[in-house]
Amino acid sequence: MVANKMWGGRFEGGPAKIMEEFTPSIGFDQRLAEQDLAGSRTHARMLAAQGIISKADMDAILTGLDTIAGEIKAGTFEFKRALEDIHLNIESRLAELAGPAAGRLHTARSRNDQVATDFRLWVRAACQRADEGLDALQQALFKQAEANITTIMPGFTHMQSAQPVTFAHHLLAYVEMFARDRGRFADASKRLNECPLGSAALAGTPFPIDRDYTAKGLGFVRAMRNSLDGVSARDFALEYLAAASICATHLSKLAGEIVQWCSPGFGFVKLSDQFTTGSSIMPQKRNPDAAELVRGKTGRVLGDFVALATTVKGLVLAYGTDLQEDKERVFDAADTLEISLAVMAGMFADLKAQPERMRALANAGYPTATDLADWLVQNCGKPFREAHHITGSIVKRAEELGVDLDKLPLSEMQAVEPAITEDVLKVLSVEASVAARMSYGGTAPDRVKEQIFFWREKLK
Amino acid sequence: MVANKMWGGRFEGGPAKIMEEFTPSIGFDQRLAEQDLAGSRTHARMLAAQGIISKADMDAILTGLDTIAGEIKAGTFEFKRALEDIHLNIESRLAELAGPAAGRLHTARSRNDQVATDFRLWVRAACQRADEGLDALQQALFKQAEANITTIMPGFTHMQSAQPVTFAHHLLAYVEMFARDRGRFADASKRLNECPLGSAALAGTPFPIDRDYTAKGLGFVRAMRNSLDGVSARDFALEYLAAASICATHLSKLAGEIVQWCSPGFGFVKLSDQFTTGSSIMPQKRNPDAAELVRGKTGRVLGDFVALATTVKGLVLAYGTDLQEDKERVFDAADTLEISLAVMAGMFADLKAQPERMRALANAGYPTATDLADWLVQNCGKPFREAHHITGSIVKRAEELGVDLDKLPLSEMQAVEPAITEDVLKVLSVEASVAARMSYGGTAPDRVKEQIFFWREKLK
Amino acid sequence: MVANKMWGGRFEGGPAKIMEEFTPSIGFDQRLAEQDLAGSRTHARMLAAQGIISKADMDAILTGLDTIAGEIKAGTFEFKRALEDIHLNIESRLAELAGPAAGRLHTARSRNDQVATDFRLWVRAACQRADEGLDALQQALFKQAEANITTIMPGFTHMQSAQPVTFAHHLLAYVEMFARDRGRFADASKRLNECPLGSAALAGTPFPIDRDYTAKGLGFVRAMRNSLDGVSARDFALEYLAAASICATHLSKLAGEIVQWCSPGFGFVKLSDQFTTGSSIMPQKRNPDAAELVRGKTGRVLGDFVALATTVKGLVLAYGTDLQEDKERVFDAADTLEISLAVMAGMFADLKAQPERMRALANAGYPTATDLADWLVQNCGKPFREAHHITGSIVKRAEELGVDLDKLPLSEMQAVEPAITEDVLKVLSVEASVAARMSYGGTAPDRVKEQIFFWREKLK
Amino acid sequence: MVANKMWGGRFEGGPAKIMEEFTPSIGFDQRLAEQDLAGSRTHARMLAAQGIISKADMDAILTGLDTIAGEIKAGTFEFKRALEDIHLNIESRLAELAGPAAGRLHTARSRNDQVATDFRLWVRAACQRADEGLDALQQALFKQAEANITTIMPGFTHMQSAQPVTFAHHLLAYVEMFARDRGRFADASKRLNECPLGSAALAGTPFPIDRDYTAKGLGFVRAMRNSLDGVSARDFALEYLAAASICATHLSKLAGEIVQWCSPGFGFVKLSDQFTTGSSIMPQKRNPDAAELVRGKTGRVLGDFVALATTVKGLVLAYGTDLQEDKERVFDAADTLEISLAVMAGMFADLKAQPERMRALANAGYPTATDLADWLVQNCGKPFREAHHITGSIVKRAEELGVDLDKLPLSEMQAVEPAITEDVLKVLSVEASVAARMSYGGTAPDRVKEQIFFWREKLK
Repeated sequence: MVANKMWGGRFEGGPAKIMEEFTPSIGFDQRLAEQDLAGSRTHARMLAAQGIISKADMDAILTGLDTIAGEIKAGTFEFKRALEDIHLNIESRLAELAGPAAGRLHTARSRNDQVATDFRLWVRAACQRADEGLDALQQALFKQAEANITTIMPGFTHMQSAQPVTFAHHLLAYVEMFARDRGRFADASKRLNECPLGSAALAGTPFPIDRDYTAKGLGFVRAMRNSLDGVSARDFALEYLAAASICATHLSKLAGEIVQWCSPGFGFVKLSDQFTTGSSIMPQKRNPDAAELVRGKTGRVLGDFVALATTVKGLVLAYGTDLQEDKERVFDAADTLEISLAVMAGMFADLKAQPERMRALANAGYPTATDLADWLVQNCGKPFREAHHITGSIVKRAEELGVDLDKLPLSEMQAVEPAITEDVLKVLSVEASVAARMSYGGTAPDRVKEQIFFWREKLK
Repeated sequence: MVANKMWGGRFEGGPAKIMEEFTPSIGFDQRLAEQDLAGSRTHARMLAAQGIISKADMDAILTGLDTIAGEIKAGTFEFKRALEDIHLNIESRLAELAGPAAGRLHTARSRNDQVATDFRLWVRAACQRADEGLDALQQALFKQAEANITTIMPGFTHMQSAQPVTFAHHLLAYVEMFARDRGRFADASKRLNECPLGSAALAGTPFPIDRDYTAKGLGFVRAMRNSLDGVSARDFALEYLAAASICATHLSKLAGEIVQWCSPGFGFVKLSDQFTTGSSIMPQKRNPDAAELVRGKTGRVLGDFVALATTVKGLVLAYGTDLQEDKERVFDAADTLEISLAVMAGMFADLKAQPERMRALANAGYPTATDLADWLVQNCGKPFREAHHITGSIVKRAEELGVDLDKLPLSEMQAVEPAITEDVLKVLSVEASVAARMSYGGTAPDRVKEQIFFWREKLK
Repeated sequence: MVANKMWGGRFEGGPAKIMEEFTPSIGFDQRLAEQDLAGSRTHARMLAAQGIISKADMDAILTGLDTIAGEIKAGTFEFKRALEDIHLNIESRLAELAGPAAGRLHTARSRNDQVATDFRLWVRAACQRADEGLDALQQALFKQAEANITTIMPGFTHMQSAQPVTFAHHLLAYVEMFARDRGRFADASKRLNECPLGSAALAGTPFPIDRDYTAKGLGFVRAMRNSLDGVSARDFALEYLAAASICATHLSKLAGEIVQWCSPGFGFVKLSDQFTTGSSIMPQKRNPDAAELVRGKTGRVLGDFVALATTVKGLVLAYGTDLQEDKERVFDAADTLEISLAVMAGMFADLKAQPERMRALANAGYPTATDLADWLVQNCGKPFREAHHITGSIVKRAEELGVDLDKLPLSEMQAVEPAITEDVLKVLSVEASVAARMSYGGTAPDRVKEQIFFWREKLK
Repeated sequence: MVANKMWGGRFEGGPAKIMEEFTPSIGFDQRLAEQDLAGSRTHARMLAAQGIISKADMDAILTGLDTIAGEIKAGTFEFKRALEDIHLNIESRLAELAGPAAGRLHTARSRNDQVATDFRLWVRAACQRADEGLDALQQALFKQAEANITTIMPGFTHMQSAQPVTFAHHLLAYVEMFARDRGRFADASKRLNECPLGSAALAGTPFPIDRDYTAKGLGFVRAMRNSLDGVSARDFALEYLAAASICATHLSKLAGEIVQWCSPGFGFVKLSDQFTTGSSIMPQKRNPDAAELVRGKTGRVLGDFVALATTVKGLVLAYGTDLQEDKERVFDAADTLEISLAVMAGMFADLKAQPERMRALANAGYPTATDLADWLVQNCGKPFREAHHITGSIVKRAEELGVDLDKLPLSEMQAVEPAITEDVLKVLSVEASVAARMSYGGTAPDRVKEQIFFWREKLK
């Protein structure tokens, strides 16, 4: 009804019943209220500064917007479906509060640039929240790493024991991934930080507006250079969703590790009761539900990216209602990402490593075979490929005898390769293996300590 | 708190604050209430029939469930977040209503098979609703087709005028697509129609249950043959989402046609005010918002499929909480699809074709060139490729002279190909072109009438 | 050059260098050669039968096509990029072989209906190959199942030991999934089995063709009813890709199980050397590469579906070159799916179950707790929820004492619940637990035997 | 066979026939040859500098690698499927050329860090190529813009005429989008520019390597800090694919505009023969195939992103063969993107704008209604909403009379709003409308000239 009036005097019929359900976005875009109010305040101030509206009108508008802000905060603002979206809801309430002045706020502005502005502000804040969530998770991982510099666990490739590593080293790998995720959100945030306000419907406006004023007032680094681009661009939303999707793959990997670490074949960690749940039929279960749910939600974030990319890919300039679909996907991804980060941070804060279980499994599967091969290269001058071949034969022998490599009699090794001496024994334990990997970035505790130091400074 | 009690006596702590936000599914799975009640009723009857619970317990349970059904219908049922999901919400309320009997309902059942059953029932109903929505849209398209059997429009390939077609023929192409969509939903519905109830947690149950009883009672054609499969399979949800995604591409195409048809370069149709909206800044606009929004929502349905496929692809048997993500994606896709179908049906019911505009554009771009080529084959015995070459030269001449093909002097044609006679003129109008396409499935009105007859019977 | 000639006499320039790289599809659509030849043969026969071309022309065409078939088979056919696609390559060669008759083959046909026909034939065959590949994999799974009816393994939920199951039961769950996949390919194959040939460019043709003749001749059940739909529909390709994507999620799950089963924490199976590879640096490794690669390729098939769905979703009728993208995605998915199925079948044929390792882990984590709860319900008349609570307390006690449930002194149980008697002990072993799950579809060997019998008949 | 030997002395069987088809990556990863050679050269120099291998061995290795580089360039290098991948192919050939020294090259290196290094180098170069392709496209768009500063076209929203804009302004909107795309590739390139070489299999190496040496030698800014991260991270590939996907949506939009602009309802541009093709059955057609194919390929790039994201999301540290799938998706996306950029640049270089057609359509649909509303605000002091309402009524009247707004008698306007004066007429032409939009970023030619100046400097 009211929305109808907004559209002008030309529509005689009203939207059909089903359209009332279909088109309004107020159900979700009320989340832009704060951004919409900020945009309107700045726009009003600029209009007055430029003499486009009077100081009195500006004051009436600003007072009205403050009242609305208060009502929304207090939960007394009534969001009306008939008013379609957050912009018309606020505008309509402002008309009640500020009278004719309210009607002047929309001067030199269209819903197209208004919503583009609001949405950029929202995504900018979402990037900031993602950064904070990632920081908290890095902190939690870092603290576990700090406490587990010498905790040895099996390092897996192909889910086979490959070489022993330290738990700290393993955790810091995730700290690195999340650091790059933070970089992606930072880049996205920087790139989107241009102001579309003043693009009007698509072509700019004849009013003598000051776009620098509004851009700066809203914390943007500049006004966007092209009004058609200003109202139509959604690559900023896609970039956010892409960064979120990539980050979600990291969360999924880490969550998958936890699920695996909690399983009876591993038992590498114990989660607190806070982050596990029981079973309705199997009372003994401690299910790592939270980790599973984080993992399961990865698909959702990726789906959000696909959804929006598919939606925008077919649109020509400047604006189509198809774009109304942009916000829900971003909101969904942001909500999913933010709570997932918080849950994972909480889970790692509480988690208890089980060093004995890790150590026990670290020995399985001849994980120091590479050390033997390296020893052959370094001490017998064997080319690597030959050393590798010899090691294979020795491992085969150990397997036949059912013993670990550091328990295999020297004579058995020498039967394969006579040049082997007793000296080899000092490299065959998992502790020796770990300690030996002293290359920069390697798993040796001394190297890991350097990284701990680095991240302690970085995450301050 | 209460949920905690459900998990047994082993948890000392309670779920952390954030987990209260993260894990409960009651916010969305309350949509399974009807299915959950149906499943419980049938399970209770079976337990009693098998002597596993007493008749009195069954009666208490059924009465309690009826009360709950009434409360939900009346909106007085309180869904509690602390009770996590719809199953525990109902169970907990039943305990208040039916006392100890309620505790016996969960005999020989687990949340795993319970939710799998509920969800299958829901998706089965969603297939049915999709079918009904598609039927309504087909009806609306059919009625427009019926009224436009001789309405000529340009047939496009590469968005270039190719050959004239009839509007009815064009619309019936979509009726065909939607018929195949109905086929996909029907197949999905048939394939999923097996009952997982009785699979228990994953391995079946020692109680002497009768799975045929519950399967038949819930309208399934049989009990699933493997309990591990019963609780873990979600391919039925993926199949629904795939069918919905494919259907959404058809809706998107059709919506895209409408957007194009409404644009000033075309003007082929007028939408009713019900299905257009105005602009806040450009009062003259009649925006085909509803069509754009339908088109924009295609990405969303595809995103839902991607989300769930990504989620399930990494899971091993039998169940992981990752699967909790299945329902929201399906609900979202079903809601999106169903309202999109309804909106499109409404839009086509109201839409007014503009035959003059269609006819005017049908003539542009030498659309009867193929007819000329065909005439050369049929009347001058030219191989098709040569006829095609001759036609190209004639079109080029017409282009140079700036006339339509049926206005090009015969002498000009003969200058290119002397064998051409006056007889050619009867095939060069768009009416003649359309009428000539008498092959089965072709655009000639007589052929289209056959299809109209076919669909009139079919859509009864 | 030649292609240029095909387009008619109107183009003066030639396609730019880059276009020679960009637009030709012959690099991939040569895979349609067999289908294209079949389509042309049938079309030629129909044209002659209808008197549209002479018997002599038909003979010349058929002989030429046979020669071409022979050349392609012998590898002597030269596919020329300048001729763009498989259709023009064959047509051009036919012109050399059959002279003017060749030019008459294209009568009443367009590349649009020709490619649609070829592609449907190809996808129909791909459905058949998928079915055969699935059958082989089911056979391999079945044989392992047959040999492991009483092999007990831990049944997992949340990757936690939940209840013991049999290996046969676990494998048969996948046989069920693959059976549904077969159903999806069968449905897709059936639905696509309508013939677009005769739709011509988009509108049908004035030539008196017999579409039933060509439809039947190519094994289709009927001619498509609408020519616009005939040339533009690609939902059959999407449906194939959707079925392949869903099937790939099943393959991914199964491959993921193998990777896990091979890892040192499990050791449930040994793969043959055929299906593992070594490491260049860690000679002891037996990496389940093949399983990992199958798992990794799931994303690819899903990506193919997304690609094509995104491509078609924006297209209006009748045809756009965008659709040239359809084939590569389908070819890629089919190749990926078919080899993945073959690899998995081979892997399961060779795989050796390790029953001791399975049995050892089956005991971990109190997997018979549910049996205890069920016993309390059945023998002490406890409501399930109370039984569940009691069991939780008993498991907690066993955990504190560090013993399995069947080793917990009776007195400890009675301290929690006095009603417990010695009789309980007979349900607490994993063997008893498995044997007790006698419900239809349950894991009890007797039940599994029924399924083995069912599948033995079914997979004959 | 040979590959088998590489894996060590433990495998007795050979890979099954099907595995020979399934696992080798040499079919595609030979594209990493240049990167692999560069990595090996630098690694060899570092090993010698650190005294791990002798100078003589280094020389033999470098000479051998040069020979191989020459053979690959000359096309005489034989890529062998039996040798699986590019790394083993080169290594094996090096063994022939350099003898035992070759075996020492693999010291302190694993295929895991080797492939990660090669792939980063490749993606870094792909980012550079994308940047160059985008630059060329921007140049082509810019030149068209420069020539069309005063060319007026309809500005569309909802594919309805909204307000007139200039063609230059429209084109520059795409220049802006592609500038952001360049920013994304630049950021991706910068973030990935860390060197994994020296991570070895996953844990680092005991050899005293100098990772700074190799990092700098390969143009990386530093060595990666964590070896587990070094071998497992693929977010750099995902980030490339995400940037490519977003860029592809821009290409798709622009290609879609071209398809539309070429269609008979528009006729805004003429493409050169180079970038159009004809029809096999409709000789008059000039199909914008190249633009359609670019648009169609968007789905493919998005599919590549989905594929890899889905593949990596489930993997735990450190490495799984699933990751072998990473390269083909990136190669495919890069090939697709690069040729699409080149094709679009070529198309815009050749394209001829049709200003008369644009101008003709710019007048349709009352595109200066907003100007009327703005005039009412500025000259009659009406609040915007009221002005909007008045304008709606006037447009309705003009529609009834079938005249454009600037042809509507003043008296008709005054009948709706008496305050309107003759002065209004100067704002109702499309030229006036465009000229009035003088706000920064607006479509007024003076404003557009500023942007032309900006981009002329920027794109130098």
